[in-house]
Amino acid sequence: MNEIRMRPIGVVRTPHATRDQVPKGLGARHVAEGTIELEAALAPGLRDIEGFSHLYVIWVFDRAEGHELVGRNPTDGREHGVFATRSPRRPNPLGLSVVELLGREGNVLRVRGVDMLDGSPVLDLKPYLSNVDPGALRRGWLDAAERRSAAEAPPDIAR
Amino acid sequence: MNEIRMRPIGVVRTPHATRDQVPKGLGARHVAEGTIELEAALAPGLRDIEGFSHLYVIWVFDRAEGHELVGRNPTDGREHGVFATRSPRRPNPLGLSVVELLGREGNVLRVRGVDMLDGSPVLDLKPYLSNVDPGALRRGWLDAAERRSAAEAPPDIAR
Repeated sequence: MNEIRMRPIGVVRTPHATRDQVPKGLGARHVAEGTIELEAALAPGLRDIEGFSHLYVIWVFDRAEGHELVGRNPTDGREHGVFATRSPRRPNPLGLSVVELLGREGNVLRVRGVDMLDGSPVLDLKPYLSNVDPGALRRGWLDAAERRSAAEAPPDIAR
Repeated sequence: MNEIRMRPIGVVRTPHATRDQVPKGLGARHVAEGTIELEAALAPGLRDIEGFSHLYVIWVFDRAEGHELVGRNPTDGREHGVFATRSPRRPNPLGLSVVELLGREGNVLRVRGVDMLDGSPVLDLKPYLSNVDPGALRRGWLDAAERRSAAEAPPDIAR
């Protein structure tokens, strides 16, 4: 199929200079704050974005090297298909994050919940509009990994 | 910034041959079923995906023409910045959909909730892992449009 060409609309600034600084694995919480700095010429595209509490950020794993279709996941130490994980080593190195929008100054958005490396290119922003019915949500191997982890942990941290 | 090059991993097959067949606007529900057909060589990347009830699909609005930073939205007839909407006319024509995974046969996923045009190129698939805290979710101009719509509609369809 044909190649698709994209151009970053900006970059994300985060406290994570290296991959080992990004919280990963079971129970990882993404509460770090950062900024999304859009190219100044694109600022009009942010009109009315302040009304949304959460945004989707589509970005590029620009420091990922190559991809693997099946890889061992650090969360449970087992092998899974890349499309069943959030591994950076994907055929198209696209990252997807949900961040909380804290404020905007012109072409710069202040956000919470950044799990990107500092300087990662951003391709798109979209409003987060709706949740999946919690009763209908199943989380595959990740649920299984969490159950195993809870069963193995001492009682006081089992939950 | 540097150009980023991507190659589709497959296509999505949907009942929507033209844009006017895709449900849009207030109260639009995406319940149509379709298939995501990955390139056969990528099928190993789907291992364990069956355990997830919902997937993110990152795809390309390949029939969108150009972009506009501010555009009138069909939902409320008002102007908003493109990054505060899901308009296809974006600087990078990326679509993002949440679909329900119904089943898998080899490199083909059967899914529900497709809002893409038939034949749209797919760039990535990821498991849907978590919801935003419902109490913390605000939906900006869309909430306002829904309130206006409810206030204007006759009582029997107001909700």
